[in-house]
Amino acid sequence: MAQNRERRDLLRDTAIDVLAEGGAHRLTHRNVDRAAELPVGTAKNYFPTRDALLLAAAERVYQRYLADQDQLTVAMPTNRGDLVAVLAELIRRGTSTDRPRLVALLELHAEAMRRPELSRLLARQTEIDFAMYERLHRAAGLPGTTARSRVLARTMQSTLLSLLAHPEDALAAQGLDDLDGFVRGVVDTVYPP
Amino acid sequence: MAQNRERRDLLRDTAIDVLAEGGAHRLTHRNVDRAAELPVGTAKNYFPTRDALLLAAAERVYQRYLADQDQLTVAMPTNRGDLVAVLAELIRRGTSTDRPRLVALLELHAEAMRRPELSRLLARQTEIDFAMYERLHRAAGLPGTTARSRVLARTMQSTLLSLLAHPEDALAAQGLDDLDGFVRGVVDTVYPP
Repeated sequence: MAQNRERRDLLRDTAIDVLAEGGAHRLTHRNVDRAAELPVGTAKNYFPTRDALLLAAAERVYQRYLADQDQLTVAMPTNRGDLVAVLAELIRRGTSTDRPRLVALLELHAEAMRRPELSRLLARQTEIDFAMYERLHRAAGLPGTTARSRVLARTMQSTLLSLLAHPEDALAAQGLDDLDGFVRGVVDTVYPP
Repeated sequence: MAQNRERRDLLRDTAIDVLAEGGAHRLTHRNVDRAAELPVGTAKNYFPTRDALLLAAAERVYQRYLADQDQLTVAMPTNRGDLVAVLAELIRRGTSTDRPRLVALLELHAEAMRRPELSRLLARQTEIDFAMYERLHRAAGLPGTTARSRVLARTMQSTLLSLLAHPEDALAAQGLDDLDGFVRGVVDTVYPP
């Protein structure tokens, strides 16, 4: 059973890499088997349809995100400065170690336009994400409503998209060459000191 | 020449529809010719490579967005209530008449991860978009910095993504079943009354 779970996770991680490197249309059972160096038919055995493969990738994307968050917030932020540091680190990871996961997530959002089940899964994940932002701002002792924490969450989401999709020189024009300063500005806008 | 321009626009509009309906991997010269009911070879004649076709679609996406904005802001907003109405209408169009354009834009962002020229084009368009938000808030007489207007722009961008990618029942949970109320809340968060 443990071996099954390991193989399942390997297949799902590989699906994320295939999505990130080649785009959604490259995500086929055969490409996952090949990239994972497993016998042809293995991915199909675990995830019989292409929809199942996409949903498995989406679930894994989120599982990895939550694990990352747990690690980042072992000590919850207790003030404004802590919150800025946690958010800046979240963004920094998004453009380095965490980049494949986020590129895969963007590909999955594009696929979700034509796939209701995937769309429902991504929506549930967004709600969990919003709840996380709300816990963070409350732990940091910042005043504010749910609506306010969602402005913060949405601004972060859009910022990650810029960091992934735009070239470096354009990021400076968007104030994203100084991530800590940028995040501090956003937090101060959403939660006036 | 006028006929050439018309045909060029027809091809670019068709490229947007193909992207929106089938995803990026369906955007081939042959599929555009077929959907536009033009002889095989026409799209290739105007846009010789797949990169050229993607860039043409991206340019057209933006041209249509700017035309839409011009129409929406013939009379610039002169107060907070006007600004809320303009932004709510922008979002409303994004989920109805303007949906194909926005789905195509999401597909183009995913493609841009692997295509530097497309990435540069999308970044320039984002800057134009940010400048528009800044003009809007200044016209409406709201106090605030460039950084503040970008929080508004990014929140709107992320909201459009939710409206496109998530199912209707999930939108209610995100407060997006009452668009006017939602936009008012966002504007009041970013520009405290």
